[in-house]
Amino acid sequence: MLRNVVVTGCPRADLGDVDALAAFGVATVHEAMGRTGYLGPGIRPVHLGSRVGGTAVTVVCWPGDNLMIHAAVEQCRPGDILVVTTTSPGTDGAFGELLATALRYRGVRGLVTTGGVRDVAELHAMNFPVFCAAVSAQGTVKATPGAVNIPVSIGGQQVGPGDAIVADDDGVVVVPRSAVSGALAAAKARADKERASRAAFRRGELGLDRYGLRSVLAELAVEYVDYHSYQEAGP
Amino acid sequence: MLRNVVVTGCPRADLGDVDALAAFGVATVHEAMGRTGYLGPGIRPVHLGSRVGGTAVTVVCWPGDNLMIHAAVEQCRPGDILVVTTTSPGTDGAFGELLATALRYRGVRGLVTTGGVRDVAELHAMNFPVFCAAVSAQGTVKATPGAVNIPVSIGGQQVGPGDAIVADDDGVVVVPRSAVSGALAAAKARADKERASRAAFRRGELGLDRYGLRSVLAELAVEYVDYHSYQEAGP
Amino acid sequence: MLRNVVVTGCPRADLGDVDALAAFGVATVHEAMGRTGYLGPGIRPVHLGSRVGGTAVTVVCWPGDNLMIHAAVEQCRPGDILVVTTTSPGTDGAFGELLATALRYRGVRGLVTTGGVRDVAELHAMNFPVFCAAVSAQGTVKATPGAVNIPVSIGGQQVGPGDAIVADDDGVVVVPRSAVSGALAAAKARADKERASRAAFRRGELGLDRYGLRSVLAELAVEYVDYHSYQEAGP
Amino acid sequence: MLRNVVVTGCPRADLGDVDALAAFGVATVHEAMGRTGYLGPGIRPVHLGSRVGGTAVTVVCWPGDNLMIHAAVEQCRPGDILVVTTTSPGTDGAFGELLATALRYRGVRGLVTTGGVRDVAELHAMNFPVFCAAVSAQGTVKATPGAVNIPVSIGGQQVGPGDAIVADDDGVVVVPRSAVSGALAAAKARADKERASRAAFRRGELGLDRYGLRSVLAELAVEYVDYHSYQEAGP
Amino acid sequence: MLRNVVVTGCPRADLGDVDALAAFGVATVHEAMGRTGYLGPGIRPVHLGSRVGGTAVTVVCWPGDNLMIHAAVEQCRPGDILVVTTTSPGTDGAFGELLATALRYRGVRGLVTTGGVRDVAELHAMNFPVFCAAVSAQGTVKATPGAVNIPVSIGGQQVGPGDAIVADDDGVVVVPRSAVSGALAAAKARADKERASRAAFRRGELGLDRYGLRSVLAELAVEYVDYHSYQEAGP
Amino acid sequence: MLRNVVVTGCPRADLGDVDALAAFGVATVHEAMGRTGYLGPGIRPVHLGSRVGGTAVTVVCWPGDNLMIHAAVEQCRPGDILVVTTTSPGTDGAFGELLATALRYRGVRGLVTTGGVRDVAELHAMNFPVFCAAVSAQGTVKATPGAVNIPVSIGGQQVGPGDAIVADDDGVVVVPRSAVSGALAAAKARADKERASRAAFRRGELGLDRYGLRSVLAELAVEYVDYHSYQEAGP
Repeated sequence: MLRNVVVTGCPRADLGDVDALAAFGVATVHEAMGRTGYLGPGIRPVHLGSRVGGTAVTVVCWPGDNLMIHAAVEQCRPGDILVVTTTSPGTDGAFGELLATALRYRGVRGLVTTGGVRDVAELHAMNFPVFCAAVSAQGTVKATPGAVNIPVSIGGQQVGPGDAIVADDDGVVVVPRSAVSGALAAAKARADKERASRAAFRRGELGLDRYGLRSVLAELAVEYVDYHSYQEAGP
Repeated sequence: MLRNVVVTGCPRADLGDVDALAAFGVATVHEAMGRTGYLGPGIRPVHLGSRVGGTAVTVVCWPGDNLMIHAAVEQCRPGDILVVTTTSPGTDGAFGELLATALRYRGVRGLVTTGGVRDVAELHAMNFPVFCAAVSAQGTVKATPGAVNIPVSIGGQQVGPGDAIVADDDGVVVVPRSAVSGALAAAKARADKERASRAAFRRGELGLDRYGLRSVLAELAVEYVDYHSYQEAGP
Repeated sequence: MLRNVVVTGCPRADLGDVDALAAFGVATVHEAMGRTGYLGPGIRPVHLGSRVGGTAVTVVCWPGDNLMIHAAVEQCRPGDILVVTTTSPGTDGAFGELLATALRYRGVRGLVTTGGVRDVAELHAMNFPVFCAAVSAQGTVKATPGAVNIPVSIGGQQVGPGDAIVADDDGVVVVPRSAVSGALAAAKARADKERASRAAFRRGELGLDRYGLRSVLAELAVEYVDYHSYQEAGP
Repeated sequence: MLRNVVVTGCPRADLGDVDALAAFGVATVHEAMGRTGYLGPGIRPVHLGSRVGGTAVTVVCWPGDNLMIHAAVEQCRPGDILVVTTTSPGTDGAFGELLATALRYRGVRGLVTTGGVRDVAELHAMNFPVFCAAVSAQGTVKATPGAVNIPVSIGGQQVGPGDAIVADDDGVVVVPRSAVSGALAAAKARADKERASRAAFRRGELGLDRYGLRSVLAELAVEYVDYHSYQEAGP
Repeated sequence: MLRNVVVTGCPRADLGDVDALAAFGVATVHEAMGRTGYLGPGIRPVHLGSRVGGTAVTVVCWPGDNLMIHAAVEQCRPGDILVVTTTSPGTDGAFGELLATALRYRGVRGLVTTGGVRDVAELHAMNFPVFCAAVSAQGTVKATPGAVNIPVSIGGQQVGPGDAIVADDDGVVVVPRSAVSGALAAAKARADKERASRAAFRRGELGLDRYGLRSVLAELAVEYVDYHSYQEAGP
Repeated sequence: MLRNVVVTGCPRADLGDVDALAAFGVATVHEAMGRTGYLGPGIRPVHLGSRVGGTAVTVVCWPGDNLMIHAAVEQCRPGDILVVTTTSPGTDGAFGELLATALRYRGVRGLVTTGGVRDVAELHAMNFPVFCAAVSAQGTVKATPGAVNIPVSIGGQQVGPGDAIVADDDGVVVVPRSAVSGALAAAKARADKERASRAAFRRGELGLDRYGLRSVLAELAVEYVDYHSYQEAGP
């Protein structure tokens, strides 16, 4: 049952750890987390080129209503990222440059939303990163209750207040607050492994060899057939 | 009943007013119009970064057919923006660089379409702004009649010939020709209000206080709960 | 019946011809081919601004599985473009910067996929063009067989191994290997025609006149009506 | 500028004419209207098998809010059909069995909405036809103003209060109040023509002959080629 | 971090309570839960006309892979409903008549899935209700691990093993195991209230009066305007 | 290069074999074909409950134009199924009851289209099965050339003239003409295997055992964990 609450005083993931994690980027963090936490291909940056990490302040709004975003601003601290969902699908521009200005004063680093944003030219000029499902100039009202800092679900992943958020051109990933240090270690290990693979691939090594996939293909009965034989056999 | 007509000699909104209006941007104009006129989140710029205003020349095409765009070019005057719809949904690239070249000669400032465009690299190089629902290289025929300069509906909003169009990274808004001067005054007032709010938010004021939302939250029975109490109570 | 094969030794379209063709861009090549070969508006560049041509190495993957992309890398030669499809719709990031590194070593020029890619910031930094239906950080497994270098269908068009691929901001077009030289000649003719039309439009000529459309409009009974008469008649 | 109004005392199309028109069905009425008035493929019946006609009472709601539907009920008269739009896209179940019960008391014949409905089993049991874009159990609030009986746009078509609505398994068509008697005559003529064509087709006549299309194909240079010649030529 | 586990011995909500709850239907249960728990408009019955309740056995599959559904069957008990999600969006027919046969032996009452089903004619003939996002004949492999009976998120709602599921023509709602008895009481109260409203509406009472909305309209400055005055004022 | 041709005298798959194949249904035929040939989840029956087989007559239309369907009617023979595609996505109702009447005279068994149909109530009353991507009353013109009986691609699958088509509530599958007898044998084998599995599942056997999946789970390191241990460990 959705309680209409603003939860205050939420603990956050350690910001130093979050920053270290963010440097690895969304795809590596997602891999490091055992391929969990990705908020899905529906949440995209409006402008490509940013990479940001922070701690989640979550918001649940009614569609067409941004009242609870205003309530959430007060709960924000430096290093936070606002994570907004609506109770049902909607595209309205519930967030724009004025809210970003208020958030910036509080040291907030960006916005993630399952809904829409507007003033995207101004947000870009401010260098305020937004990751969203839609851009829409359509305005919202401030008439319906919702919640701040309760757990929300986006793309099948749960985001709790204080969880680590990493966002870049690949989208957005969440790391539960309690899992951040483990994720950091795993991301480092993953990045090391990727670095080694990158070097190998630059030298011409094949994934088939590096990952031992030739035997997998053989087990799966994938045949190698010459073009001319294949043509003769017909598809 | 759709008449297959090209309506000539349409009056336009005053171009000076339109230009003044365009400077405020789509979101502010939409707000100034009492939150009407927005053509919806489905019409997007191909390239971010432009803001343009002009007077509408409207076109109704058959899907897969751009005959009536050619008829419309002749009706265009400096300051116009071409607004194209199709009688049913379609993505074909009914508009490209050659048509843009013809329009530019006539002083046309941009294109808005519920369909598709192509040659988008060339259009960008020409600095010709396009706002569309799709990019598609698929060509069209010139075989089916339609109309020019009749009222059309996009995203639930009516666009008539000569109406003011403002388009930027937030999408497209229409202002009826007869409402332009009123919209301009309202946009100025809105922008003044936004400027004051922006200054306040930069100083750290909260929307909760500025917009009197604390009492709204209280009336709606939104509770403030400490994190630990919330955890104990369970969701 | 899908055979789980890797077809080797496929002939390619002549790379010199492919390069010459690519210079015309997607829209012109599609026109030159009698308006065929366009892979549809669903395949888009992640970053605008590139134009690339090459010869297809085709891949069929299971959704959520990139095993066969690894098998395909080995089959690639300088001038190739990897063309990936999945047996059913999916968005997972089956391709990223490490695979691009391996492909670059082989002289591969880009990727076209009906699925998703990740590491898009890194791919952009590498200047490796990708044309795809989705961006997703979601990782894939390497557990299910598929095929390399068999004919595949994208957007209603067939792509065979060695066919010419041209991709730019308008999307992707395929030219069958056997049709490349004919397409090249047709593209040149088309470009010449477009150049003449462009010059004419720059001088103010109308498409109505240049393409003989006034008689088409007349045959189709499109009427020219003055604004005031139209208003009086009602819509 | 959207005025927050309830417009009262709207004239309606003649119900006898509307009933006569409805008997022809959506596709025939749309044809009779010169292929205008169709609200598009996005508005569908939840249950197939009904055909209904009536006069429009229009409603504009905020997404997630059904306040104005309640205001609209009072404006309904026997023979009306409620036509609901939202100011931006939304799927919430703003309409259900209780509202249908209130409407039925007033003699209302059905609902058309660009949003969502719920209680669809109960609505079916009541034999209350609904044509909608979504089914959703998600409830709505009653907090935001809107309008009743102002002109609205759906699928590019304008619907005014008192206009004739015809809905069946093919979707929904609107006929402007002033055009109903003309549409009725045209629909009769169209139906007569269709009846003759149906009889001809039952006897084995071809559309190619009946509609004179053989010469169209010839003019368009469509060739007839034997299968074996086509195979030899290659595609 | 997704653990590849099959969680055994999960407690279930009381089946008597679940059955009592299901009788109220999805919309009423959703309302009784404070408008939470609805899995969204994307999960629909293939065939209209069923209403079913049960306790959730949750499954997480890889796209294109139904291995974990087979693992889940063994964990099922009479009264269960299988709730399947995939780690990323997909439409493949991971579930069909054979799996339904196995589930029926165990007394399972239905299937809810964010993916696809097949054999839908056979499932209907068996009277086995399925609620899904897609129908697809495309087969799946059994090659990738996942999880059974871990919490999953669908449409922004969390579904845990043993939670109550209610599904009908309006879609699917989840009630947390610990909330079932409270929800049952609330649903009864809601149904009583609805019954009284239904009776009132049948007598001709208006929602405007019953819900006290006239004063809401007045506060929101909604005006009542006669048709002719509105026409004169212009829109 | 799309040739504007009507290919005549196409050989068909043996209708007796096609009928035998159709009896197995779409999912079984798709499996028997090595999981190929499925036209995807986007092509659906308007009315559930039919199963039909026949030989393909293929049609390529321009969006919004049904000229070539008329040309195709003449090419149809008893046992055929019309398979319509458009050169770009479109929803218009290019097919309705009159065309179905003409087809029925020729013994045609149904329609498959990537576009839209109309008169769906009448088509249902005629018991003429249609499988389509959209229902739309929007009419089409007869102005643009296309092709009949050339190979077309739908959902990544190629459909040639004379190929076998099987369609039911699971969608549509194509079997190449040359593969029909092989597919028939494979479908019989598949159906036998399914029959045995069905019997086993009815007796309570598990897929885990029947398909040897316990060892797969073990190899993939899927653990079995008791609910209480899982809860203690945390997710």
